[in-house]
Amino acid sequence: VSDNPGASPDAAVRSYIQAQREAFLADLIEWLKIASISADPDQAGEVERSAQWLAEQLGGAGFPIVEVWPTAGLPAVYAQWDSADPGAPTVLVYGHHDVQPVDPVDLWDSLPFEPSLRDTPHGQELVGRGAIDDKGQVWFHTLGLAAHLATTGRTTPAVNLKLLVEGEEESGSIHFPELLRANRERLRADVVVVSDTGVYDRDTISTTTGMRGLIECQLDVTGPRGDLHSGSFGGAVPNPATVLARLLATLHDDAGRVTLPGYYDKVVALGDRERELLAALPFDEGRWLADAQSTATYGEAGFSTLERVGARPTAEVNGIWGGYNGPGGKTIVPSHAHAKLSFRLVAAMEPADVRSQFEQWLAARHEDATIPPGITVTATFEKSGVRPCLTPLDHPALQAVTRALGRAFGTRVLYTREGGSGPEADLGEVLQAPVVFLGVGLPDDRIHAPNEKADVEFLLRGAESAAYLWSDLAATWPRGS
Amino acid sequence: VSDNPGASPDAAVRSYIQAQREAFLADLIEWLKIASISADPDQAGEVERSAQWLAEQLGGAGFPIVEVWPTAGLPAVYAQWDSADPGAPTVLVYGHHDVQPVDPVDLWDSLPFEPSLRDTPHGQELVGRGAIDDKGQVWFHTLGLAAHLATTGRTTPAVNLKLLVEGEEESGSIHFPELLRANRERLRADVVVVSDTGVYDRDTISTTTGMRGLIECQLDVTGPRGDLHSGSFGGAVPNPATVLARLLATLHDDAGRVTLPGYYDKVVALGDRERELLAALPFDEGRWLADAQSTATYGEAGFSTLERVGARPTAEVNGIWGGYNGPGGKTIVPSHAHAKLSFRLVAAMEPADVRSQFEQWLAARHEDATIPPGITVTATFEKSGVRPCLTPLDHPALQAVTRALGRAFGTRVLYTREGGSGPEADLGEVLQAPVVFLGVGLPDDRIHAPNEKADVEFLLRGAESAAYLWSDLAATWPRGS
Repeated sequence: VSDNPGASPDAAVRSYIQAQREAFLADLIEWLKIASISADPDQAGEVERSAQWLAEQLGGAGFPIVEVWPTAGLPAVYAQWDSADPGAPTVLVYGHHDVQPVDPVDLWDSLPFEPSLRDTPHGQELVGRGAIDDKGQVWFHTLGLAAHLATTGRTTPAVNLKLLVEGEEESGSIHFPELLRANRERLRADVVVVSDTGVYDRDTISTTTGMRGLIECQLDVTGPRGDLHSGSFGGAVPNPATVLARLLATLHDDAGRVTLPGYYDKVVALGDRERELLAALPFDEGRWLADAQSTATYGEAGFSTLERVGARPTAEVNGIWGGYNGPGGKTIVPSHAHAKLSFRLVAAMEPADVRSQFEQWLAARHEDATIPPGITVTATFEKSGVRPCLTPLDHPALQAVTRALGRAFGTRVLYTREGGSGPEADLGEVLQAPVVFLGVGLPDDRIHAPNEKADVEFLLRGAESAAYLWSDLAATWPRGS
Repeated sequence: VSDNPGASPDAAVRSYIQAQREAFLADLIEWLKIASISADPDQAGEVERSAQWLAEQLGGAGFPIVEVWPTAGLPAVYAQWDSADPGAPTVLVYGHHDVQPVDPVDLWDSLPFEPSLRDTPHGQELVGRGAIDDKGQVWFHTLGLAAHLATTGRTTPAVNLKLLVEGEEESGSIHFPELLRANRERLRADVVVVSDTGVYDRDTISTTTGMRGLIECQLDVTGPRGDLHSGSFGGAVPNPATVLARLLATLHDDAGRVTLPGYYDKVVALGDRERELLAALPFDEGRWLADAQSTATYGEAGFSTLERVGARPTAEVNGIWGGYNGPGGKTIVPSHAHAKLSFRLVAAMEPADVRSQFEQWLAARHEDATIPPGITVTATFEKSGVRPCLTPLDHPALQAVTRALGRAFGTRVLYTREGGSGPEADLGEVLQAPVVFLGVGLPDDRIHAPNEKADVEFLLRGAESAAYLWSDLAATWPRGS
């Protein structure tokens, strides 16, 4: 793994991109005016219009194949431009053209769909819904590709380039896995490049090496068939709320480790190198706690906060309920009690394994009498879960992204782990390809919030990174693999 | 403690009572026609009318002092008839003249306020709301007193007799403690006789030796100031739902004992004799479980179900809530989690002690890190609580009640413990007098349900018991105490 102190940039690429700056921004602003809020059924027409706009632009940019792909919900855009070079690697770029809702509108300094450029001490920023999440990051690929072609003198990209721009990311990507599976052959790629994330901060350029997976369940603990008067029965029948509490209390051990049998068996251990690089991030625990609105950290012994959030699996209680919760008291033994649980997984855990581990764990709780006679417990897993994804530091695709970012930003590139889970993992899973992240968001971009913005310079560096990446991947990708 | 095989009854008392049977029932039926439902504001006039009816009847029965006592809610009736005998003990009889609502009316075989007499294999029963709970049991005292006077040739009772008949028992006795405290001097008594309970079953005559006390609290566990995304923060901040679970999980030890420090220190241990007598009750665990709608018992090691319910203190989780409880999942670390707890107390526990024990217990949970930094826990006790009451088996008042019941029913009298808590404990506490229970309800009387009934023979035996009790107390009460 090279430490990548930031290889020298290509002056031609950079000057091409700077020359296109105004045109790039003018087009992006036009797109940002389309209120493609996928969560709002009233804006479905705007999401359609956004897809059409993008398709036309991509056609104009030279993509020989451009299609609007309908789904049972809102449409995605697909574009493809194959390389004339035989044996060129195939890259699928993922982004989305839908945006978050804009409430509360009165907290915006300018109208969310009337984008405005503002000067800041760091340079210009573009304020508007979707500026960075994710239209700006999709759009920089058109500029990056143009720079790649113009500065290399090519008429086709050095890689077979596919673009998949989803229209439902901000409303749960409900139809995305279906879309992927239905188009698996056409989407086939050697590498997936996701452009929907960010760097660690303005001074710390980074890429993400993995995302956590997810599986969720509901735990239902049932005791007496009805609520009982605690005077007549309390102390002599098992209380399902107490049993639930005991189950949840033993889901972690004293070291903060999840107690499901075999839970950690498949976990890819953090290598010393990755731990070092994670530790090199200028993590400010005070600021992180302020974001968390918490006064203390807590978690698995032996791991830092960043490791706990990104590189370690967890089990969280998302909700509990049962019995009386109104004003005053009600002296009952409740008939039932419930919890919602979610497990965040890291590579190479399998969601299906967690399900069977949980069932074994429950069986053991019967054996050790945590679940006494008179109480039944069922766990219902609502979905098949989302797999984690992780690209090892020494993977050629990650190395190429690292070099591309390093050249564009002129700096060392560090690595982050994403604690959340998303459609990116579905991409990796369905397409059986490594997923890398080329994203230039900043932590203060206010995504999902009023006054969302993109730093214009970062968008341009994103384009520059993409231009480098296609040449780099074409040159370094192991052929015949 | 005498085993009381049932001393021989007084033929004169019994025949007097039998002679009055029809008049007794006719008057009771008149009273039962008054729909004195205290929980229904529309029936407030009926509760007033019930109080007036009773006051008139008690005046007619010879009580020199009869008053309707207003409260901030519905009225009580007070009557007093002092003994001419100097040094006679003073007895306060407690009952109530309000009744439960009658819904669902269509499940009644006859109209709830059109009482009807029915023949059964056991004799006659009187069906109607309030027949046993509690008008029938208040009313038998008028007959018992008349029999006492008639058969002893007295013009005043052998004891100073006070009657307090509440009008809000079925709606929470909200103003009762206030009423007691305001009239503490006039209500002063050596013994409180409660007639609002029952015997173990038709073949097992018993009296209650104690009721459990009660104190309730709400536990609020707060972590991050807002719900957090479990992807971004899960695994690295303390989860208040997990902390709540750990607290509730350790509220009992593996033997089912409550872990509050000193919780059992003041508990009056069950004596061997009382355990024997409790064990002598024909307890049918299968039937009890059917009533509990539970498939298994559970509780403190070393105690029977009846002991657990009546003679041992408990801690119950009455409700839990926090975080997400809707359909599907929501991957959050909840900001807060809550529980409602209630503690049933037995003599001689003090509600105020439990409060401070709970606070000590919470402090220890901070020390042992069950409550980690970043989490705050508060316990809010909503009321001052209700004290438990217990009359020892060898107490003269309990002995007298035992003898009176034994003579009336011609059988051995056993003892029960009441697991619930009620205004009876307030009586004992405010008046600083022992509380004994002279009640003739049967487990199948359907109190609070459609077709409430009273067994006529049991009501008459109640009257007979009262007649014996006044003479017995006068003769055996330790003078000068």
